[in-house]
Amino acid sequence: MTVNVLLFDGFETLDAFGPVEMLSRMGKNAIVCCSMEGGPVLSSHKFQVLTVPVTEVDPTQVLLIPGGMATRRLVSDEGFLARLRELAERAEYVLTVCTGSALLAKTGLLNGRRATSNKMAFRWVTSVSDRVLWQRSARWAADGKYYTASGVTAGIDMALGFLRDLYGSEVSETLARNTEHVWNSDSAFDPFAAPEE
Amino acid sequence: MTVNVLLFDGFETLDAFGPVEMLSRMGKNAIVCCSMEGGPVLSSHKFQVLTVPVTEVDPTQVLLIPGGMATRRLVSDEGFLARLRELAERAEYVLTVCTGSALLAKTGLLNGRRATSNKMAFRWVTSVSDRVLWQRSARWAADGKYYTASGVTAGIDMALGFLRDLYGSEVSETLARNTEHVWNSDSAFDPFAAPEE
Repeated sequence: MTVNVLLFDGFETLDAFGPVEMLSRMGKNAIVCCSMEGGPVLSSHKFQVLTVPVTEVDPTQVLLIPGGMATRRLVSDEGFLARLRELAERAEYVLTVCTGSALLAKTGLLNGRRATSNKMAFRWVTSVSDRVLWQRSARWAADGKYYTASGVTAGIDMALGFLRDLYGSEVSETLARNTEHVWNSDSAFDPFAAPEE
Repeated sequence: MTVNVLLFDGFETLDAFGPVEMLSRMGKNAIVCCSMEGGPVLSSHKFQVLTVPVTEVDPTQVLLIPGGMATRRLVSDEGFLARLRELAERAEYVLTVCTGSALLAKTGLLNGRRATSNKMAFRWVTSVSDRVLWQRSARWAADGKYYTASGVTAGIDMALGFLRDLYGSEVSETLARNTEHVWNSDSAFDPFAAPEE
């Protein structure tokens, strides 16, 4: 299985590369960094990652969408959203981290589904769509083929949870041990839950 | 303060980009991805990051050295080690993650100092130098200007500990909250400690 990591200028570094570390351990050449246009993409931390255009990836695999401040701009970019919707529809699984769920919500594909996001940006994210069943308290939420994580390092926990759902606990526990990660394996345990408003 | 992230082909992705996420939050343009020769560097997960040559960075800043399987080769690369030693000597602080400490140990700069590494690779790392006071149980170790973390995600905890040492607890606690990271803030608490042999 391949994971297509969809990068865009201003993506949050660890939103992408936390899950990448875990998901890649499923096999060789499992990770493909891609972007809408291809070429160098600038992380939120001002370094560049080389990407292939999304037209050159196998879209039927796993799609990983990071967040970052850039999502505030991209939720209004109709061209980006239309292409994102097509990619997400064709993917076998779609994983988002942090405000990446705002982008996915804006495509409409999370309508009627449980999803979550960074609790520090929760008010903004939930304002993007009122048709998503936003979870105020969840380390991550899984609904059908859609997995959405809370902020930044929650993506690592979600990636391990996703692998557990696919391959069983032992795989994820071994991965957590090998990366010395103290895995919050309970998606419902959220130390950063958003207060009720 | 700038963090020079020293990349090399085969570096472990999250060893570098976990700490980057935290360290970068100290200011704008705080992160410089560099390599001995500059140009594209291939991560362990087969994507490329663009780097500047180390000759073009300010060496008096923070140096971050990730690990990865590539370190098994680099500990025998005298040219690499000589340049690494010079960089590490000139840096105000040197941070390593995972088997990055094997590289630093091989330069001799950890001689007589407390240091740690990935517990899954501990026997190999400690075989690189018997003059380092290797810590079998430590999430990370700090000795003078040298900070060495255990495996992979321990680097995130260490980065927050490093920032606490420099700027106080509140800075690190805010960072942890903003990234929804459950911070293991006690460097002595090591769930993955290596057994005594």
